[in-house]
Amino acid sequence: MKILVVNVNTSQSMSDVIDAAAKTAASPGTDIVTLTPFFGPEAVDCNFESYISAVAVMDRVLAYDEPFDAVVMAGFGEHGRDGLQELIEQPVIEICEASAHMAMMIGRSYSVVTTLRRSVPPIEDRLRLSGLADRCASVRANGMTTLEVDQDPAGAMRSIVEEARKAVEHDHAEVICLGCAGMAGLEEAITSELGVPVIDGVAAAVRLAEAVVGLGLKTSKVSTYARPEAKRIDGWPLSEALGLGPRPQGLALRAGGRR
Amino acid sequence: MKILVVNVNTSQSMSDVIDAAAKTAASPGTDIVTLTPFFGPEAVDCNFESYISAVAVMDRVLAYDEPFDAVVMAGFGEHGRDGLQELIEQPVIEICEASAHMAMMIGRSYSVVTTLRRSVPPIEDRLRLSGLADRCASVRANGMTTLEVDQDPAGAMRSIVEEARKAVEHDHAEVICLGCAGMAGLEEAITSELGVPVIDGVAAAVRLAEAVVGLGLKTSKVSTYARPEAKRIDGWPLSEALGLGPRPQGLALRAGGRR
Amino acid sequence: MKILVVNVNTSQSMSDVIDAAAKTAASPGTDIVTLTPFFGPEAVDCNFESYISAVAVMDRVLAYDEPFDAVVMAGFGEHGRDGLQELIEQPVIEICEASAHMAMMIGRSYSVVTTLRRSVPPIEDRLRLSGLADRCASVRANGMTTLEVDQDPAGAMRSIVEEARKAVEHDHAEVICLGCAGMAGLEEAITSELGVPVIDGVAAAVRLAEAVVGLGLKTSKVSTYARPEAKRIDGWPLSEALGLGPRPQGLALRAGGRR
Amino acid sequence: MKILVVNVNTSQSMSDVIDAAAKTAASPGTDIVTLTPFFGPEAVDCNFESYISAVAVMDRVLAYDEPFDAVVMAGFGEHGRDGLQELIEQPVIEICEASAHMAMMIGRSYSVVTTLRRSVPPIEDRLRLSGLADRCASVRANGMTTLEVDQDPAGAMRSIVEEARKAVEHDHAEVICLGCAGMAGLEEAITSELGVPVIDGVAAAVRLAEAVVGLGLKTSKVSTYARPEAKRIDGWPLSEALGLGPRPQGLALRAGGRR
Amino acid sequence: MKILVVNVNTSQSMSDVIDAAAKTAASPGTDIVTLTPFFGPEAVDCNFESYISAVAVMDRVLAYDEPFDAVVMAGFGEHGRDGLQELIEQPVIEICEASAHMAMMIGRSYSVVTTLRRSVPPIEDRLRLSGLADRCASVRANGMTTLEVDQDPAGAMRSIVEEARKAVEHDHAEVICLGCAGMAGLEEAITSELGVPVIDGVAAAVRLAEAVVGLGLKTSKVSTYARPEAKRIDGWPLSEALGLGPRPQGLALRAGGRR
Amino acid sequence: MKILVVNVNTSQSMSDVIDAAAKTAASPGTDIVTLTPFFGPEAVDCNFESYISAVAVMDRVLAYDEPFDAVVMAGFGEHGRDGLQELIEQPVIEICEASAHMAMMIGRSYSVVTTLRRSVPPIEDRLRLSGLADRCASVRANGMTTLEVDQDPAGAMRSIVEEARKAVEHDHAEVICLGCAGMAGLEEAITSELGVPVIDGVAAAVRLAEAVVGLGLKTSKVSTYARPEAKRIDGWPLSEALGLGPRPQGLALRAGGRR
Repeated sequence: MKILVVNVNTSQSMSDVIDAAAKTAASPGTDIVTLTPFFGPEAVDCNFESYISAVAVMDRVLAYDEPFDAVVMAGFGEHGRDGLQELIEQPVIEICEASAHMAMMIGRSYSVVTTLRRSVPPIEDRLRLSGLADRCASVRANGMTTLEVDQDPAGAMRSIVEEARKAVEHDHAEVICLGCAGMAGLEEAITSELGVPVIDGVAAAVRLAEAVVGLGLKTSKVSTYARPEAKRIDGWPLSEALGLGPRPQGLALRAGGRR
Repeated sequence: MKILVVNVNTSQSMSDVIDAAAKTAASPGTDIVTLTPFFGPEAVDCNFESYISAVAVMDRVLAYDEPFDAVVMAGFGEHGRDGLQELIEQPVIEICEASAHMAMMIGRSYSVVTTLRRSVPPIEDRLRLSGLADRCASVRANGMTTLEVDQDPAGAMRSIVEEARKAVEHDHAEVICLGCAGMAGLEEAITSELGVPVIDGVAAAVRLAEAVVGLGLKTSKVSTYARPEAKRIDGWPLSEALGLGPRPQGLALRAGGRR
Repeated sequence: MKILVVNVNTSQSMSDVIDAAAKTAASPGTDIVTLTPFFGPEAVDCNFESYISAVAVMDRVLAYDEPFDAVVMAGFGEHGRDGLQELIEQPVIEICEASAHMAMMIGRSYSVVTTLRRSVPPIEDRLRLSGLADRCASVRANGMTTLEVDQDPAGAMRSIVEEARKAVEHDHAEVICLGCAGMAGLEEAITSELGVPVIDGVAAAVRLAEAVVGLGLKTSKVSTYARPEAKRIDGWPLSEALGLGPRPQGLALRAGGRR
Repeated sequence: MKILVVNVNTSQSMSDVIDAAAKTAASPGTDIVTLTPFFGPEAVDCNFESYISAVAVMDRVLAYDEPFDAVVMAGFGEHGRDGLQELIEQPVIEICEASAHMAMMIGRSYSVVTTLRRSVPPIEDRLRLSGLADRCASVRANGMTTLEVDQDPAGAMRSIVEEARKAVEHDHAEVICLGCAGMAGLEEAITSELGVPVIDGVAAAVRLAEAVVGLGLKTSKVSTYARPEAKRIDGWPLSEALGLGPRPQGLALRAGGRR
Repeated sequence: MKILVVNVNTSQSMSDVIDAAAKTAASPGTDIVTLTPFFGPEAVDCNFESYISAVAVMDRVLAYDEPFDAVVMAGFGEHGRDGLQELIEQPVIEICEASAHMAMMIGRSYSVVTTLRRSVPPIEDRLRLSGLADRCASVRANGMTTLEVDQDPAGAMRSIVEEARKAVEHDHAEVICLGCAGMAGLEEAITSELGVPVIDGVAAAVRLAEAVVGLGLKTSKVSTYARPEAKRIDGWPLSEALGLGPRPQGLALRAGGRR
Repeated sequence: MKILVVNVNTSQSMSDVIDAAAKTAASPGTDIVTLTPFFGPEAVDCNFESYISAVAVMDRVLAYDEPFDAVVMAGFGEHGRDGLQELIEQPVIEICEASAHMAMMIGRSYSVVTTLRRSVPPIEDRLRLSGLADRCASVRANGMTTLEVDQDPAGAMRSIVEEARKAVEHDHAEVICLGCAGMAGLEEAITSELGVPVIDGVAAAVRLAEAVVGLGLKTSKVSTYARPEAKRIDGWPLSEALGLGPRPQGLALRAGGRR
């Protein structure tokens, strides 16, 4: 089984972190191929960037011209999962939703802990739209920017653990979901301090992708995620139009061109 | 990895069907051990029976005195999952919830198709309490009793497919979940006729149990599912008190006795 | 009119407390018969115990072979109400639901105050499933175990009143429901200190049972609570199979027997 | 115990019907005093009329200068219950809410059947605001005007039974609530034809008022329903200002006067 | 375009404040006519008063016998909007709803800040019934009475700003709606201190009324807000029956008279 | 006042239709400038296309280097509104939300009528996320493709009117919102046949934009819609990177470049 894991930003170091997490989580016999978009933001922290990222992720997956069995979208709550589901038949598992699915199987309620306060609404929206918000006790942020995290990793870890503690003690969360990829490695710290299971989204998504593929299931094409009808799309595929990245042959959706 | 699959009724033939479904779904390297309760109803069709079944399932799992990694509760929407989660650390996956988790990963909405109308409310309740009801388009019943299904299997299949069709066409379901074990085998008929993915709960639960175990996750013991405190329980373990089944040694929860 | 009040645990002293509360609340002309299950836990503090209790309560009520008009289930939010409703025609009033009904008639919102934090989720679930959660401001726990309550009753009372105060001041509850039987007698303390009405579940249930019976209403048998179909149930009735308690003659549901 | 039953319109014949229903439902020892407002519409069929009625009912109850224990507001879903609760300490039971409370104790879901389609939204609003809508399967109307009901009572009855049938068969209602006073007497017809319990709001409210009073409970005055502060209200009490009806002495709220 | 702005209380000074706010907000070419009811409370602080006010507002608008294009109901969350919508075809915009509409167009969530705690539930009810509650982060009150506000305006302003700050910091409101007319003028103070947009209901309602009228839209008369059928209403129109205010000729709804 | 109206697709004929609708709806003194994206799909019928469109719309608005007061996003329920709100301070009004706001001011409930069934979920999602779904009676589709509409405009109109009729008669909608731009002109046909108000999204959005701007309100920048932090975005601005369209000078967000 081969799973494509797509980073949603263009940071190669982040892709490396994601790749390692995915490979650690994968079952024996599962091949992990981690992709980085050809264009887009180096980090995704707001809706503006998330929309660019959504398009870049779809562009990148379509450019991959070998067989694969599933896609893991490694952006916590970012846009684009439903668009990608339209374009391909293979299951697409987004890591925020995967975290919630996994959490709900081992606890009555869960909280997400992330960094920027402005990331909270998109995560809440993602959970609500995917029908997984009901057992979400809270989405909490430690309020640090990426820069501050970089400058004070120990302080960042402490404040993340503190938010997790509030989630457990005040919001009655019984499972903690790590709300961004940079938190990988905090699982043990939180579990040992608070005694609750902790879920990393990439790991959860890889295992759930295996489960879906293992049953031979594919995305339902009967309505919402039916394949788009062919039509003119100016500038698409974007990476090709931008002169970025190698392009596969015979891509069905290459409809447009420069005007 | 060893997964206990517990039938919720005392019908050995049903246990055989479940066992076969679980083994077909399991990954290579996963051992399936299917258990039948020592007492309780031969079929579970109402809340009265479901409560007895809940106790019988907990009794049966506690009586199993070898190591295992997870439990699949093979009763669609029956009571008892939360009780069993308190008693053991290993993940407990109920097949109605497993179906919903799986369905939500491959479609925007799903419907459950079951037989008796009276089974609809417990299924709705199970989905609502587990926080998975939001993307449930409908729970539909073909209205047949088990007896009628036995006497007219072809007619039963036709009416199940008809309910699935209504779910797709009227309720806009994009995935169908089979709402009782007796429907195993209908997946292909429904998919080929309606073009939607179909999910069998036992298969879904086995694969999800593998996913949870694969990540090393266990049920959160921080609050709701904490281990019960030791106390006097008259008549417990019930199978032992009834003189049914072999009993393990040293069971921590064997608190009571006949008065 | 005769109302059966069923304790959900096997503690005779608790049955005595419940019996007294029920008799104090009953109208002149209402006979209260308080029953104690033949088996099960001496106190119900978790789902595991609650499921055993649900079965024991159904067993105990079926074993009562004289006429009666209604049943009050005296376990705050425990399992089993819907099962019992299937077995008999007489109304079954559960005390958590009764408290909520009563509270909603005299205030805009109510809170439940209970002891163990782990009891909060089952109470929330009961209120949600019975459609009475919408005006529930909060379910609060003082966090004490039964043992701690026994050792420090004055401290327990103070902490219960403090939780009630938080419910009124922070959650804007306008009525307080006492979330376990051991709190009977706190009504006056809370009302005099906080100026809000306080409801004891047993009292509320007895009066509501009188109201339902007074209108000649019985549980609807049209679908969800229809009588179970006859079928083999191994070990049922459990108290008889266990050799506990006298059994009535001619019980329609005595379907099984030891294998 | 004395219960005031207030008709919400000025039709004396409707007051007589309500009075008879209340007296039939009341326990021995309960005195029923039925009041008719001094002014307002002869029937309440829309929000405009309902608001006048709300004021007329408050005016009428305040003008009653003898002791009483509770008020039943005999207008199905009309405005004004919360205003009256502010003015007096005695419990105020509105018949739409009373029907829902009663129905939820004997069935998993209920439907309301009324006449005019335009009455459906206010009933839905009343149920939603009072936190009782969750188990409401539907509010259905037969679409007849009062005039049409008068001219064809047999046809009206048939169409009401037909709507009740749809509620049971399509909406899965297990209890039917009669959504206007003119339907008294239909209980037996519906129950015998459809096999479901049927609830008349006036009867339900009288019995629930008895239950609340029996426990010594009064409306919570801690916040929402606190007594209004004294202030100038021009034209109040309206019936007195209009020269209608006898007025009591010393009424605390007689604040204003003609300008 | 002519917009009637109706004060809901009988205080002329409040009408003057409202009139000034409306005229400041109105576009060039919009005529503002501010009306004061002929009877009712001098301030509306509870449901009892709100119902009288609802009737007085309908009475006052019907008594206005010149053409107009829309009505703004200048009572924050008070009763009566739906009744007035039945009586006339012109759009009726209530200021609490208008504030929410406006807030949702410029922020992800909003809070309402009002004075009395007892005003919170009616505002919550109004938002819920009008389908605008979903993005309401909170309704907060500073707990002051009107008298206290009069005696300490500086303290009142400080405490309002403090509640707004809590709304922004704790409830994550991104827009603040001023929950009573007496707060006009606080917009700048709050915006400069907290950096969030602030909305005054009267201003919002005037501009939204212009928008609705500008598109030629009128209240839908197809069902809920259809014109009331002619019927006898004793005492109506109330102001005429009370001998208050001039009455227009030929009013269609003048159905009753003194008995 | 100048309002930018942005078509979400690259069809110039559609931009012309939108431009005409906006100019018809605008108040005297409002300048309408209609923009067409530099790249993207010629029509937006699915999530894949909607995400490209979201980016193209943001790109197009940023490229507009003259002053403006508000933006109307003329894609019914498409992605991107929240991203654009982050990039600029001026209010951004999306036409699906605008329709709902307008509808809720003139009726108790509304339905949206669109063409493709696959457009229903995104519209439902948009309404849900924007907190406007509560009074949405239904989102209905006539099931025609754009091609079929082109080939049989009379039949399309008939089927749209039929869906509107079902919305009114079965779903009890009181206002109809036209769910795609191609339906402009159907307002009169529907209103004259069904007697309900009909709302065109572009017109509604233009008038609401005027209302928001008229009060001096801008998008709240306190959290969710705060301006993105500067960072490297490869390929942005896309139209410039693609060599499409003239680019403004000094664009603050031009962070990236080709790698």
